[in-house]
Amino acid sequence: MRHKGILIVVSGFSGAGKGTLMKKLLETYDNYALSVSMTTRSPREGESDGVEYFFSTKEVFEKEIESGGLIEYARYCDHYYGTPKAYVEEQLLLGKDVILEIEIQGALKIKNRFPEALLLFVTPPSIAELERRLTSRGTETKEVIKKRLLRAAEEAQGIDAYDFLVINDDLERCVQEIHEIVTASRNAPFRNTEFMNHIKEELEALSKGEN
Amino acid sequence: MRHKGILIVVSGFSGAGKGTLMKKLLETYDNYALSVSMTTRSPREGESDGVEYFFSTKEVFEKEIESGGLIEYARYCDHYYGTPKAYVEEQLLLGKDVILEIEIQGALKIKNRFPEALLLFVTPPSIAELERRLTSRGTETKEVIKKRLLRAAEEAQGIDAYDFLVINDDLERCVQEIHEIVTASRNAPFRNTEFMNHIKEELEALSKGEN
Repeated sequence: MRHKGILIVVSGFSGAGKGTLMKKLLETYDNYALSVSMTTRSPREGESDGVEYFFSTKEVFEKEIESGGLIEYARYCDHYYGTPKAYVEEQLLLGKDVILEIEIQGALKIKNRFPEALLLFVTPPSIAELERRLTSRGTETKEVIKKRLLRAAEEAQGIDAYDFLVINDDLERCVQEIHEIVTASRNAPFRNTEFMNHIKEELEALSKGEN
Repeated sequence: MRHKGILIVVSGFSGAGKGTLMKKLLETYDNYALSVSMTTRSPREGESDGVEYFFSTKEVFEKEIESGGLIEYARYCDHYYGTPKAYVEEQLLLGKDVILEIEIQGALKIKNRFPEALLLFVTPPSIAELERRLTSRGTETKEVIKKRLLRAAEEAQGIDAYDFLVINDDLERCVQEIHEIVTASRNAPFRNTEFMNHIKEELEALSKGEN
């Protein structure tokens, strides 16, 4: 059985450790490609074009919207964020499983447009742990942390729409778990329509054929 | 995360090798329990009560139907076949993943009644291989083989309702694949409602709590 790649959408509470997980997943297995988003916000210190984001002007971004060059996009705090289509499609055709790290609203848009996408939601083992992780960064004010927890409360309402829940309690174990979920997901009937149609046609031919 | 067991329904074309697969799966991993069906047909040579089937009279079987003691049942060629409920529930509560080996109509009934059941469909890698396996048994007439292939053609139409497709080309690999599918399936949000509700409540409390 040959497969085209799977479009994987990964969401999770801020502080759930998505970034570290994805980095480790890409280092460990060679079947994944990480989609890089396009944004109109300015690069922060240490960020490079094409690595964290493709940095773009408002004009270029809006042209991409018009020409259908983005799989999805959203506007936050006066900046655009979106997923360029070309790279994703190219990698899927090469058989790579393409990961979009995207928040919950974008994830649901993707699922709507690509029902065969695989939606994973990453959560820490507990809210106490989530608070601890957000606090231990030491870079965020109490207010920002509070805001993220409020946002998490909103996001939690949408988790049921995800295909799988991944509890990030141990990095190595969790990376392996994600890989096993992706591997198992290749066996969904709707990801094997070619094989299934072939089997159905052969059986159909037999049942109409010689006695 | 603790889980109650998963109710696993396994179907597949006659000749797909389900029996051998299930035997090997149960030998290899200790989290499975195989449900034994009840039937009113007579035991064949080598079959023992409680192993291949629970053999029962028509009267006893019909009493079980009336008292709700069967998860599902069907009538073929003047004989009843059904799944006793007590054993399945007992094993699920013990945390065992309980396997029902059942044909497609029964499987769809189960899915209807227990939406959280996991439905697996086993198929050989090709129809040529299916024919070869049916023929090589040497115990079936051409007519019987033809009948099974016709039945397979009918069954193939229902595969889309299954959660996963398993292609039985290599016994060891296939047993491992089934185990990985079951393991991954534990991560579906609807199989983790207790954990999810706990997270939601905690976040809810935080967002209503102190500033």
